[in-house]
Amino acid sequence: MDIKSLSNNELIALAANIREQILQAVSKNGGHLSSNLGVVELIIAMHAVFDSSKDPFIFDVSHQCYAHKILTGRSLETLRQFKGIGGYTNPHESECDYFVAGHSSTSISLAVGAAKAVELKGDERIPVVLIGDGAMSAGEAYEALNELGDRKYPCVIILNDNEMSIAKPVGALSKYISHAMAGSWYQSFKARINELLKYAPDSAAYMAKRLEEGIRLITPGMLFEELGLEYIGPIDGHNISEIISTLRTAKAMKKPVIVHAQTTKGKGYAPAEGKLEKWHGVSPFELEDKEKKAELSYERNSRIPSANESPKTATQIFSSALLSLAKNNEKITGITAAMPSGTGLDALLKEYPQRFWDVAIAEQHAVTQAGALAKEGFRPYVAIYSTFLQRAYDQIIHDVCILDLPVVFCIDRAGIVGEDGATHQGAFDISFLNALPSIELAAPTCEADFKALLSWSQSAAHPLALRYPRGRFICDELKDELEIDACEFKPYKASFVKTAQSDLLFIGYGNAVGKACAVANTLGGANVVNLGFAKPLDEEFLRKLSASFKTWYIFSESAKKGGVGEILSSFINENDLGVKIISFEYEDAFITHGKKELVEASLGLDAASIAEKIKAYKSAKK
Amino acid sequence: MDIKSLSNNELIALAANIREQILQAVSKNGGHLSSNLGVVELIIAMHAVFDSSKDPFIFDVSHQCYAHKILTGRSLETLRQFKGIGGYTNPHESECDYFVAGHSSTSISLAVGAAKAVELKGDERIPVVLIGDGAMSAGEAYEALNELGDRKYPCVIILNDNEMSIAKPVGALSKYISHAMAGSWYQSFKARINELLKYAPDSAAYMAKRLEEGIRLITPGMLFEELGLEYIGPIDGHNISEIISTLRTAKAMKKPVIVHAQTTKGKGYAPAEGKLEKWHGVSPFELEDKEKKAELSYERNSRIPSANESPKTATQIFSSALLSLAKNNEKITGITAAMPSGTGLDALLKEYPQRFWDVAIAEQHAVTQAGALAKEGFRPYVAIYSTFLQRAYDQIIHDVCILDLPVVFCIDRAGIVGEDGATHQGAFDISFLNALPSIELAAPTCEADFKALLSWSQSAAHPLALRYPRGRFICDELKDELEIDACEFKPYKASFVKTAQSDLLFIGYGNAVGKACAVANTLGGANVVNLGFAKPLDEEFLRKLSASFKTWYIFSESAKKGGVGEILSSFINENDLGVKIISFEYEDAFITHGKKELVEASLGLDAASIAEKIKAYKSAKK
Repeated sequence: MDIKSLSNNELIALAANIREQILQAVSKNGGHLSSNLGVVELIIAMHAVFDSSKDPFIFDVSHQCYAHKILTGRSLETLRQFKGIGGYTNPHESECDYFVAGHSSTSISLAVGAAKAVELKGDERIPVVLIGDGAMSAGEAYEALNELGDRKYPCVIILNDNEMSIAKPVGALSKYISHAMAGSWYQSFKARINELLKYAPDSAAYMAKRLEEGIRLITPGMLFEELGLEYIGPIDGHNISEIISTLRTAKAMKKPVIVHAQTTKGKGYAPAEGKLEKWHGVSPFELEDKEKKAELSYERNSRIPSANESPKTATQIFSSALLSLAKNNEKITGITAAMPSGTGLDALLKEYPQRFWDVAIAEQHAVTQAGALAKEGFRPYVAIYSTFLQRAYDQIIHDVCILDLPVVFCIDRAGIVGEDGATHQGAFDISFLNALPSIELAAPTCEADFKALLSWSQSAAHPLALRYPRGRFICDELKDELEIDACEFKPYKASFVKTAQSDLLFIGYGNAVGKACAVANTLGGANVVNLGFAKPLDEEFLRKLSASFKTWYIFSESAKKGGVGEILSSFINENDLGVKIISFEYEDAFITHGKKELVEASLGLDAASIAEKIKAYKSAKK
Repeated sequence: MDIKSLSNNELIALAANIREQILQAVSKNGGHLSSNLGVVELIIAMHAVFDSSKDPFIFDVSHQCYAHKILTGRSLETLRQFKGIGGYTNPHESECDYFVAGHSSTSISLAVGAAKAVELKGDERIPVVLIGDGAMSAGEAYEALNELGDRKYPCVIILNDNEMSIAKPVGALSKYISHAMAGSWYQSFKARINELLKYAPDSAAYMAKRLEEGIRLITPGMLFEELGLEYIGPIDGHNISEIISTLRTAKAMKKPVIVHAQTTKGKGYAPAEGKLEKWHGVSPFELEDKEKKAELSYERNSRIPSANESPKTATQIFSSALLSLAKNNEKITGITAAMPSGTGLDALLKEYPQRFWDVAIAEQHAVTQAGALAKEGFRPYVAIYSTFLQRAYDQIIHDVCILDLPVVFCIDRAGIVGEDGATHQGAFDISFLNALPSIELAAPTCEADFKALLSWSQSAAHPLALRYPRGRFICDELKDELEIDACEFKPYKASFVKTAQSDLLFIGYGNAVGKACAVANTLGGANVVNLGFAKPLDEEFLRKLSASFKTWYIFSESAKKGGVGEILSSFINENDLGVKIISFEYEDAFITHGKKELVEASLGLDAASIAEKIKAYKSAKK
């Protein structure tokens, strides 16, 4: 199909067909629904005007790229399935995918890099970016606009303005962009000004120029034009012919141009149209069962069970526990960066809007301000996913740890997150945080443990990072069958959660304590320790342990490099304990998308595979 | 002295006195000169209008805080000396220092956090920020303005516009702020518009409102007002009474207000006035010897010897080696984030302005665009100090490592940097990078090694991070006395650089190989290995080594946690090599300011202390 030769009616039919494919795939496999339905016409127009085999097509976050995948010959049948089509762009999947993306606000920087390469090569190609208004809150987008406006590389940036980012949009810029300024009003205003100019005194020419600037400046493009970028818009992001003609104009300008398109999220599927978070990322659903859907709350591919379902997810435990602590402790404050329901902070934002803030996609800013709040005697809980906390690494060091301020980092989505894949796995937080002086690292294993840890965290003396998984704790989910002896939180203490007449010793950290227990059962019994804290270590306990056990099997949902196994290896070497460490953490490779169980099995990290490995190791040793 | 009771003339005299103290201290101890001379009046006015024992005084980067230190009773006699007054704000030094800072663009986020705390407490305090125009290029500043404009916390932000950041200002915003818009012109323009309005038709009121907006918008405050912030300025940043009255107005507004002050860097010291980088951070100098100074080039407290001095600094080696490689390889590109001369990229920016870019203080953007350049087949060299690379951690993962793109990270200022202290030490790069799949880590030991490594890096297949120290390599500096046997670079290979009839084995990484050699000499001989690569390890070599040596002493200028010793501990445990690791890396604490030698000695990491420790360890073992 040569999209460039289609008539307008054929393009409209194509859009309907693509919407249907998206609905079918997402209702079957889950995924990002409303954002993808909202940009079908924009993506068709991108393909009609540009050439994705040549021009860098750059999708910010790239969760909205489904139409692009379809137009470049990919079926969404296996969307987000293990070994199937990924939910984001990926050059390993198609040459038409220029880059990988999953985190927000990198697209304009990529366009700048691509534009520099195009210029150096003397190519005719031109980068084209599709970015949502929500992604404009992160500083990197602004850093990139700043250079682009200065250097003026040819580049077309389609700003998809659906008046919502993932959550309700936050921030002055977002308000500004969303400010409705109808084209007709603007035209009549311009006419009036021209009329007015007839009465102007001698300096009319000069004034005219100034006034023209004045007028231009109060259009929504002002901010961009002030940064040195051309601006066109707002245009109707569902009118294919209007978009195509605008993109042609923008392309021909050979400058950096912002095309501001207004769209409706969920366009074409009534239950999702214009809805906020609910339909952003969804689990599989029945296309026709509209009633049921309305009851559910979704975000970023996380099906969140309702509050009464049992056991609760880690996020729900965090949310309700912090809510009850906040009732009695007015020093508790909290910050999320555009993930209110994903982190469970939504309940607190609602109950205590004066003490809890969603600061938009702005992790750096979130962490630094938490430093100031802690300095002022408040206890800030910064709830950010493991993968997104990487964005604020310097701020954790510079604005929290150097002054040893008691900020509590609540690291949701630690470990394998499932269908979102490589860009979203929460693998590195232990490695990058452990190196930092003054911070302490802990991880809860189950609901009771998490509640106790959160309660204690109110009086923690240092920066504290708590990591917990997406979904439910294994220990909660398999409570009955795991037969855990004890699970009592004590600050800085490791403890046995399972003992057995066995020379096997498993040390678990966080959610993986459950995995260790499951493997223990598979093997007919083993001693299982909950490490509790990865930093500082319970050195006394570990020293005693080394007297009885000379091989420690480590369970943690984290990268091996810099992870719990390496932390313990180092401790053993330093203390001459003569213990062999065998770690079941993630090997040194990025981890693909798919259901967590399938991905873990592919890595040999499911309970059965681990049990086999331990048996093999033990028999080899004999 | 109650500054609030002084007359204008007394304040002017005070300014002169403070300038003299700054000049005396910096000429003696080195430090930030021109920026501190430029803000004397601004800081006096801050103290006249606000109260630093109560109102949060927030200095962005805080290198410009010397006048504040003087006004809060601190002598600059020991400025930047070991155990003396630090070069940045530090609450441990004075209660009048609200926060620690050393990295750019955190101040507005801190003000937001402080303002939230003030509101929650119902205090009358108000945060006041002093930030330079250069710091406005970093995304975090924008993230913070975005929330501030939305929530409207009372807060005064003094934008110190000296038309230069550390280097020549870059970027559209900087251009914009610097745009000269004289107050008198603006006033007459406003008067003309009012005149014009007399001729306006019926809709005059409506038009007037629109026009007023139009006028307001084309003042320099437009961008800020568009973000929802009040704007006053530009004012003369050296006119104390004007600043005081403006700050009083701003304080009374009970809103977020930007006060735009124009200043001259180096004000009051003719050789430094208005100069670019040269006088930003300086080594000690003779106040009267103006000729000599003109020959030197300085930045960020790094005295950079001239090109003919020998041996060269690591930065100079990098600069000249990359320059000669770039002559023959047009695929080589390079990016610095506001540190052209600090990183040595200035020579390349000058010679190849099409292929080398200074993107301003915008590390995130720098790294992401490097990803795109690498994807396009170019070989980007990203030159960023170790401490500032922390700012781009997520981008290294998300935009470089996931796609395994051959970007070369040139990590200058790795290890202890000296007088800049805790915020600037290059301690963590090995720890935070080693965890990332696909990246490789190497460190040169001397000029020859560095040149060979850079030459090889042109064809490296993966992301590559090279770390090297501030100043000269120990191996170059002490070349004659160290009696190094061999130093030949081979990719991925470790090698002996010194052998001896001894059971002592030292493994060095990067610059610390020189330290290992020095300790070997002190102890009358030892075997010294240059590890070469921290990732991947030369496993075969290390395995063989373990057969002959059962204790490895590790030398690396990096944090112990996640550092070279831990990497090797883990390797030993995994391979059952039964080797004891004793590492002379940095313990788990932030490291203070002062001359590198003094700081190292205080940590017990000078050659003599290490030699003593080794002797003690050996005799204890016997």
